Amino acid sequence: MTFKSVGLTARNDNKRAFELAEKLANYLEHKGISEVVDPEIAEHIGRAEAAVPLEEWRPDFIITVGGDGTILRTCIQIPKPEPPILAINMGERGFLTEVLPKDVIQAVDKCLNGKFLLEHCKKIAASADGEALPDALNEVFISADAPVKLLYANLWKNGERILDVRADGLLVASQTGSTGYSVAAGGPVLDPETDVFVMTPACPLTPFPPIVFPENSKLTVEIERPRTSLVVVDGCYRKLLEKRKPRVTITTSANVTSFIRFRKEFYGRLKSRLLYPKGRRC
Amino acid sequence: MTFKSVGLTARNDNKRAFELAEKLANYLEHKGISEVVDPEIAEHIGRAEAAVPLEEWRPDFIITVGGDGTILRTCIQIPKPEPPILAINMGERGFLTEVLPKDVIQAVDKCLNGKFLLEHCKKIAASADGEALPDALNEVFISADAPVKLLYANLWKNGERILDVRADGLLVASQTGSTGYSVAAGGPVLDPETDVFVMTPACPLTPFPPIVFPENSKLTVEIERPRTSLVVVDGCYRKLLEKRKPRVTITTSANVTSFIRFRKEFYGRLKSRLLYPKGRRC
Amino acid sequence: MTFKSVGLTARNDNKRAFELAEKLANYLEHKGISEVVDPEIAEHIGRAEAAVPLEEWRPDFIITVGGDGTILRTCIQIPKPEPPILAINMGERGFLTEVLPKDVIQAVDKCLNGKFLLEHCKKIAASADGEALPDALNEVFISADAPVKLLYANLWKNGERILDVRADGLLVASQTGSTGYSVAAGGPVLDPETDVFVMTPACPLTPFPPIVFPENSKLTVEIERPRTSLVVVDGCYRKLLEKRKPRVTITTSANVTSFIRFRKEFYGRLKSRLLYPKGRRC
Amino acid sequence: MTFKSVGLTARNDNKRAFELAEKLANYLEHKGISEVVDPEIAEHIGRAEAAVPLEEWRPDFIITVGGDGTILRTCIQIPKPEPPILAINMGERGFLTEVLPKDVIQAVDKCLNGKFLLEHCKKIAASADGEALPDALNEVFISADAPVKLLYANLWKNGERILDVRADGLLVASQTGSTGYSVAAGGPVLDPETDVFVMTPACPLTPFPPIVFPENSKLTVEIERPRTSLVVVDGCYRKLLEKRKPRVTITTSANVTSFIRFRKEFYGRLKSRLLYPKGRRC
Repeated sequence: MTFKSVGLTARNDNKRAFELAEKLANYLEHKGISEVVDPEIAEHIGRAEAAVPLEEWRPDFIITVGGDGTILRTCIQIPKPEPPILAINMGERGFLTEVLPKDVIQAVDKCLNGKFLLEHCKKIAASADGEALPDALNEVFISADAPVKLLYANLWKNGERILDVRADGLLVASQTGSTGYSVAAGGPVLDPETDVFVMTPACPLTPFPPIVFPENSKLTVEIERPRTSLVVVDGCYRKLLEKRKPRVTITTSANVTSFIRFRKEFYGRLKSRLLYPKGRRC
Repeated sequence: MTFKSVGLTARNDNKRAFELAEKLANYLEHKGISEVVDPEIAEHIGRAEAAVPLEEWRPDFIITVGGDGTILRTCIQIPKPEPPILAINMGERGFLTEVLPKDVIQAVDKCLNGKFLLEHCKKIAASADGEALPDALNEVFISADAPVKLLYANLWKNGERILDVRADGLLVASQTGSTGYSVAAGGPVLDPETDVFVMTPACPLTPFPPIVFPENSKLTVEIERPRTSLVVVDGCYRKLLEKRKPRVTITTSANVTSFIRFRKEFYGRLKSRLLYPKGRRC
Repeated sequence: MTFKSVGLTARNDNKRAFELAEKLANYLEHKGISEVVDPEIAEHIGRAEAAVPLEEWRPDFIITVGGDGTILRTCIQIPKPEPPILAINMGERGFLTEVLPKDVIQAVDKCLNGKFLLEHCKKIAASADGEALPDALNEVFISADAPVKLLYANLWKNGERILDVRADGLLVASQTGSTGYSVAAGGPVLDPETDVFVMTPACPLTPFPPIVFPENSKLTVEIERPRTSLVVVDGCYRKLLEKRKPRVTITTSANVTSFIRFRKEFYGRLKSRLLYPKGRRC
Repeated sequence: MTFKSVGLTARNDNKRAFELAEKLANYLEHKGISEVVDPEIAEHIGRAEAAVPLEEWRPDFIITVGGDGTILRTCIQIPKPEPPILAINMGERGFLTEVLPKDVIQAVDKCLNGKFLLEHCKKIAASADGEALPDALNEVFISADAPVKLLYANLWKNGERILDVRADGLLVASQTGSTGYSVAAGGPVLDPETDVFVMTPACPLTPFPPIVFPENSKLTVEIERPRTSLVVVDGCYRKLLEKRKPRVTITTSANVTSFIRFRKEFYGRLKSRLLYPKGRRC
């Protein structure tokens, strides 16, 4: 895998992120890598001419400067299949990010020299009343349209009615997402080599355990009440459901998100999250 | 305690509740009890002339026909101190209600003859940036203004900074409320004779136990983020907070809600909720 | 699958179970099925001559009269591979059992006529310091040798050190076991079609989520402290570990336990357990 | 409060604890304070002549060198009322301890000069079948006599039957203990100014929330099964119960344990436990 082009994005609310992104842009240009830049940051880093909407990106790899939120937003917008991501940690929440700002140039050099591992992360595919939603790297969340309204839902697995649940919300999380919002709601961690996803209720009215499903199963959530409900993908993409008894269908996506890593480290990152946690959402 | 006047309300979406309320209105009239009726139901039960806004009620006692939601909405609106409530169960969720529809006349007779116990329930008093909110019989809930946004809050007890917390929401519940939303979020049940309230985080980002405070302590929740947040009292009364870093102050109210009961039964009701649960919100 | 011989066992502390077992023995004899009988009950049901130790059983199928405990004890003792089990419910805890006493003859007839489904349940294989333990249908539990002593354990996955944990105990549960002790300790339910097992800590000193591993992974638990520890298989088989820093190795077994069922019903039984729970151990 | 005599104890498995205890003994002697020394450490620190069994101690104050376990064992043994404790942290688990080894002399000087606060910690009084057990600073734990055996218990509050519970164990914790084993089992933290105690089930068979009781209430736990059960006070004192259906009665003790503190700091210690936890038992 040889990288000749890069897509560059960064959180757009942080001067240090801009500075680092600019430094990276200069270095990559110097190395002869062609660049596309997130329009939201292009001007801030003096790259107005390289601005390309994320929906049109086709680079060989992507660099994100920020936290998990920056990655999640990027993955939702870019065309599939996704090029691998080098994630620079400049956010307070960084379960997915790896590279520290001080190590940025060294990390880019390793990338360009092909000295890295690829971590492939499974994603969750959801559709609402037949309309596909963006894949989730972390989780799909279903709730009422406002806080403190109970969600009444009926569950099907592969077309067979299995259970009913009443809760603040329902989370369906991937391996990656299992360490985030889902674990905060009481869900298990899914080892990255498992072939499953997990449904975790948030504040269920009566005790209701998380359930782990095989990745090829199709989970259908029929929303009985309230009249207006909400699906949120990775904390970023929100869709109101206003039809009567909408159905959200969830399974494992054919797509993956790939991260450029310099060591195998799922449990190392898990340990960091368990002991010195840094955050969960975008 | 002799009852000469009654306030009558009912859930306003249920024909059987109207019928029962009408039956009650007729019976009470026949017994010589003067009536004020919730304007939302007065016409439905042929009592348009008795319609009085709940904010102006001063009856000797109140009858609610419905579930917990009907009670909670009534308590939020009526002037303080609150007259005792006879709660008829005609809702699917009825932790607070006691009397079954078939026992209604018998229950009213016992009331008029003074053959009952009063169960006094402590309430939670909250204010947001100095402005008092209605007292909560169950709980005060603080969250971001929309689902899946993390709340960053700083906590003070009696003016002393104690802890920071990041969670979907924070619940501060009374003894009564401890069996409802709070227990769904992982909180303890508070025996009705305790002099405390409990703060329970909903889906905290990192594990954060519920904390039980003495009832005379003043808990202050400063909302660091997001920019717009929400306080909800008893699932009914919602207030958006749009100032910068608003502060919600919470303590035990001087007011109580009193229920007319025919036996002591907190743990009986708790058992029902634990084993054959019926619901939690309005 | 034609059944010509049966193994018959029952809980040994219940007169009604003996009576039902005797009725079954007579009926099966009448049908020309050859019988081996658990020595613990053989005399009670007038079948002293058919007594054969479970370790030597080789029948075509097995009937258990009792609760989950009766099944678990049977599975631990019988030779592998295990013949299918028809489980008669005569215990207060019956997640695994299906047939009610009144339906016994009808169920046996269906069995003999081949009119049934087989539910194959994965099992957990464990060894302690290289010595194999009986397979677990529900779970392998590791703890200190006495209550209220903290277990310090180091975890490896496929030979790679992953995490340390301090807890009252560690549970490693199958799909079947995920609905039992493991869920009581906060674990998720594993759909029976998943290819995983789950490790759930009991009362971890610091919050530690359950972790779901792929079924072909090898989990090693090294016990750092205390000096004497305990492994319990399915609540029945207990082994004290007295070497220094013993290692318990756990993976999915090549064996399964098969149940004779008359309908597909995992979620039906889960619902019963969630709403009208009956118990969990032998 | 002027201190003229001291009781000195230390963990007995740690050379550095002996050295520090010896240094303290020398310094206190030099200051003219009379000493009694725990017989378990007296010889190790060259104070064989000062050895006095803890059951006979009557010093003005106590110094413990070790972790929480050292404190808990000391409190269980010494006569009541207990003199105040200066707790030197030389254990990996130190929720109760405050003074670091390097600050020992300075802390002793402050003590002798009366420059300190007293933190009074409520204790739990329990009796088993009418026989008093030592008071618990942290918690009373009730379980079967061996791991993985379910406890069936019936609960009374002030003589009124309230609930039944089936669980691995039942914890009844004080404010101090609420941050220890109880929180690991899912219990709430009790603010030190509350007048309550909390009962937390460990791994309840069916979901059962912790319950907070008023401190003057009498909680009775009748053990239905198994035949032999166990009560453990503060993880140190163990008593087997072998009568039929024994009753353990629990309330708040008239005694307190007092700690010598140099600042008010409950929530500071709680924060440390929540974020960088060090342990929980003796």
